[in-house]
Amino acid sequence: MAEKTLHDLFHDTLKDIYYAERKILTALPKMAKAASDPKLKAAFEKHRNQTEGQVERLVEIFGIIDEKPLGKTCPGINGILEEGTEMMKEFKDSIALDSALIAAAQAVEHYEISRYGTLKTWAEELELTQAIALLGETLEEEESTDEQLSMLAESTINSQANVAAE
Amino acid sequence: MAEKTLHDLFHDTLKDIYYAERKILTALPKMAKAASDPKLKAAFEKHRNQTEGQVERLVEIFGIIDEKPLGKTCPGINGILEEGTEMMKEFKDSIALDSALIAAAQAVEHYEISRYGTLKTWAEELELTQAIALLGETLEEEESTDEQLSMLAESTINSQANVAAE
Repeated sequence: MAEKTLHDLFHDTLKDIYYAERKILTALPKMAKAASDPKLKAAFEKHRNQTEGQVERLVEIFGIIDEKPLGKTCPGINGILEEGTEMMKEFKDSIALDSALIAAAQAVEHYEISRYGTLKTWAEELELTQAIALLGETLEEEESTDEQLSMLAESTINSQANVAAE
Repeated sequence: MAEKTLHDLFHDTLKDIYYAERKILTALPKMAKAASDPKLKAAFEKHRNQTEGQVERLVEIFGIIDEKPLGKTCPGINGILEEGTEMMKEFKDSIALDSALIAAAQAVEHYEISRYGTLKTWAEELELTQAIALLGETLEEEESTDEQLSMLAESTINSQANVAAE
């Protein structure tokens, strides 16, 4: 058996999500700009501000495990964001663009929910009490953002994208 | 406004997840082979069989909207699976490998949960009654797989990966 343990996995995945969050910070303003619905625009802008706080929490967690805040290229988020950009191009100027933006954002949210859920469980096993709390706060924000996007889609945006409903 | 509507978005995303599911079908046996814990191995094998049924449901849904079952390259799943492969290499022969495999599998599950959740909501708006039921069945399977993986991680696998707990 080599020497890599759950602690290394925690550190590695922390670097992964740190990279991902900073990529998301640059993607959200583009999504806000592309959105037509003012509520959707506002939701993206609000989540951008929230993401800044999430990055700060990650920096704190690096401190808790005595490591420098360094990112590590995350092919997962790169792929998800690339797909979002493709969809934005493909549905540009169409009535379905806002629905496509929500779908892209929810794929991002679910990637984050999975990563923060995993990190929180590992922090519990590693007894990193302060990190558990910080990861829990971010996890709640991501879950709540996902729910808000679902509500926006179901209340008005999907029906605006559906020609048959007009 | 161009002519693209929610129906096009539904069809497009169906092609995306059809491609993704078939990629996942080839990834799961590798993950089962890499896993040490017999329960984790069994969980990956069970989910592989389930995924075959999910692909069949997608073929049915293509039929419902009078389209041929065709995939479309999905950078999202490609990135997530690439990241999983990297982690498998990095944690090979280590006590943390099973925990890394679970994290990778849960990132995949969450991608699918996001896509099936979105497709089901769109199917409701498009009044595709049969598709709603089929998408709902798959969504439940993905959510249940995600929960089973969390339980495996929390019950034994993470503590086995944690040197401090030995």
